[in-house]
Amino acid sequence: MSKTRTWTAETIAIGSELLLGGRLDTNSLFIADCLAACGVELRYKTTVGDDLSDIVAVLKTASRRARVVILTGGLGPTIDDLTREAVAHATGQRLSRRKAALDGIIARLAEWGRTPTPSQFRQAKIPAHAELLANPVGTAPGFSLVWKGTFLAALPGVPREMEPMVREGVLPRLQSWQGTQNTISVTPMVRRVLHTSGVPESVVDQALAGLVPKGSSIRLGIYASPLEVMVSLTGPIDAKEPGTIERLLHEARTRLGDIVYGEAAETMESVVGRLLRERQLTLAAAESCTGGLIGHRLTQVPGASSYVERVIVSYSNRAKVELLGVPAGVIERHGAVSAEVAAAMARGIRERSGASVGLSVTGIAGPGGGTESKPVGLVYVGLDAGPNEAMTREFRFHGGDRNVIKQRSSQAALDLVRRWLIKRGQG
Amino acid sequence: MSKTRTWTAETIAIGSELLLGGRLDTNSLFIADCLAACGVELRYKTTVGDDLSDIVAVLKTASRRARVVILTGGLGPTIDDLTREAVAHATGQRLSRRKAALDGIIARLAEWGRTPTPSQFRQAKIPAHAELLANPVGTAPGFSLVWKGTFLAALPGVPREMEPMVREGVLPRLQSWQGTQNTISVTPMVRRVLHTSGVPESVVDQALAGLVPKGSSIRLGIYASPLEVMVSLTGPIDAKEPGTIERLLHEARTRLGDIVYGEAAETMESVVGRLLRERQLTLAAAESCTGGLIGHRLTQVPGASSYVERVIVSYSNRAKVELLGVPAGVIERHGAVSAEVAAAMARGIRERSGASVGLSVTGIAGPGGGTESKPVGLVYVGLDAGPNEAMTREFRFHGGDRNVIKQRSSQAALDLVRRWLIKRGQG
Repeated sequence: MSKTRTWTAETIAIGSELLLGGRLDTNSLFIADCLAACGVELRYKTTVGDDLSDIVAVLKTASRRARVVILTGGLGPTIDDLTREAVAHATGQRLSRRKAALDGIIARLAEWGRTPTPSQFRQAKIPAHAELLANPVGTAPGFSLVWKGTFLAALPGVPREMEPMVREGVLPRLQSWQGTQNTISVTPMVRRVLHTSGVPESVVDQALAGLVPKGSSIRLGIYASPLEVMVSLTGPIDAKEPGTIERLLHEARTRLGDIVYGEAAETMESVVGRLLRERQLTLAAAESCTGGLIGHRLTQVPGASSYVERVIVSYSNRAKVELLGVPAGVIERHGAVSAEVAAAMARGIRERSGASVGLSVTGIAGPGGGTESKPVGLVYVGLDAGPNEAMTREFRFHGGDRNVIKQRSSQAALDLVRRWLIKRGQG
Repeated sequence: MSKTRTWTAETIAIGSELLLGGRLDTNSLFIADCLAACGVELRYKTTVGDDLSDIVAVLKTASRRARVVILTGGLGPTIDDLTREAVAHATGQRLSRRKAALDGIIARLAEWGRTPTPSQFRQAKIPAHAELLANPVGTAPGFSLVWKGTFLAALPGVPREMEPMVREGVLPRLQSWQGTQNTISVTPMVRRVLHTSGVPESVVDQALAGLVPKGSSIRLGIYASPLEVMVSLTGPIDAKEPGTIERLLHEARTRLGDIVYGEAAETMESVVGRLLRERQLTLAAAESCTGGLIGHRLTQVPGASSYVERVIVSYSNRAKVELLGVPAGVIERHGAVSAEVAAAMARGIRERSGASVGLSVTGIAGPGGGTESKPVGLVYVGLDAGPNEAMTREFRFHGGDRNVIKQRSSQAALDLVRRWLIKRGQG
């Protein structure tokens, strides 16, 4: 297999709120995938506060170790927004006001029925030798430049603004510059992702042993989180061996079987939603320990109102009896956290709502409420789609806090629906 | 005011899943607050994949620009876990197996009813001159060492393991080493945080203008996110002017008034929960566009079952009529997204559940479903606590996606409950 050549990239997220304010930079994954297509590999991600000399220092370090540096944030109108100044300072340029940038800001604000404040004019100043990157959504323009052999782009930190600017502004400019760098040829890379649910990392690891042949330039990544184990295959789009990654992806899907619930940007809730729509079925859910999380996740998907009939969070026993028709005697005999109550909840919500499928969860999310026989992490999931289509599952989730147990319970419940919908078929 | 001296710190999060796997490093805020108390300021945060030479390079850069470097992640048992090797390599030490570490791993696994695998013994090897940091929760021990004038600590990436290790292991060792560095005296810093809701950043900015006197070593930070505007005051714990930060914090609270909903680690849902408990009241919620998010947030708080009676996600009109008793004629006349329907939902859930307070949300989360007169982002919140205790509020959330509109709606609804509970008083 031919030797893969990639360029190294670094992202720099600018903003004290990212360092100290409890906010997280969520942009680098998107940027990593876009850059991979240009043969550029994200290897470093740095976060720095709103301090001019710190940003300049970070920028200099990045330009030494990376050929592509993408800055996000710090392009707003306030005096805390220092990215323009920092790039100008580091690269020894002055800032110059661009008429095109100014016109863009005025036009965007006019759309919103507003006139610019003096501080907003600051956003029209970019380093003298930089190229302007138009912002199709907000007011802050971005810019790009090549400095000492490093391609550098500065973009807003808001994902809705940053993403189209990478696709429409950064990538074409980066590719055209790469074309001029004929001393180095780069191999475009592609990254394909599978999402699995219901098994630990070690099972996925074992199933995929030997998948990628020794000496291959394709890399397998296996990443575990409380909700899932994610599998990624990253490698060159190789003209000599077209389809290698696709072939390995197909082989991985075959080996993993039905634990694979989706690809790329799919989520469990989007897959369940698609399957319900395809089959023209509706869903109603009765949640106890998940407290509304299943409803929240299902309704994150646009158009969920066409298949989510209702969700009832029956935290109290009274609500279980009144709203779901769970017999009080069943709760008394088996306890609220039991397979019997899960079954009655699923049946009750289906019958009373008229939905095609009823889903239920009851369990102990902790930290309190656990006993020797019913410990924290014990969760029952029920599914009911009619007299001969009912089932319950028991789960024991170890070593997580309240939120992790809620998250894992919601995933297990949605996964049960997914598996049932696939087995049921399109008919 | 005396000149403040702080040391610079950097965190290094290690793991390809943090760079490319869509997972986020959530540890640095906790570490920043702990270090501040030792007069050490977090200025850089770096993320790097599971690549030995990349980790070594990042470690060398960090030790040049920071006096304290905290590494998280990469201490697991697999060959992808390279933190131990990287630190040994960068500092020119060999790895040596520690008996205490080995005994700790065996004892922890025995608690879980397991015996160690050979790969788990890897975790007992740490750099030869490092001090062992016990892990009170998991199997991976951490370690610390001083190298060329930089204090360096390596910890697991799992917050539940990392947090006690910082408090019980890293901070005492860092402080005792600082005591030996008598060429530099450090000023312990403290960071206090207020959370506000319901107003834009510019309002908070204006209200706090001039709060911190010119030349003061206390810094004011104002950070906006979709859910809130956060205010932070960071400064020295100054023996000459004790209580300065507390005085400014009090002044900030007074200036901001009832838009402040909490301090430090408080969340809107934890504050609402505390107020309900103090007043011995219960809550039931009827959610439409938020889809279960309010229920999910309320039940993130341990013990929520004592005051959350039920939550109904009435996505369909049928559910609104059947479960909440909203008159079909009201929906027909005013539309499902209207103040009238919000009022009927809040009244209905209160009356049928027997809870003290009924809360409702109906709105258009988008991206579809908006019209000229009822655009995406239009949301009505209703609160009903009895015949003379009912109100509705209209919100128009601009420029956010479906998730942002759901989040902001849930925050506005919970904030209405908070304000009502405070006004009602303890009686």
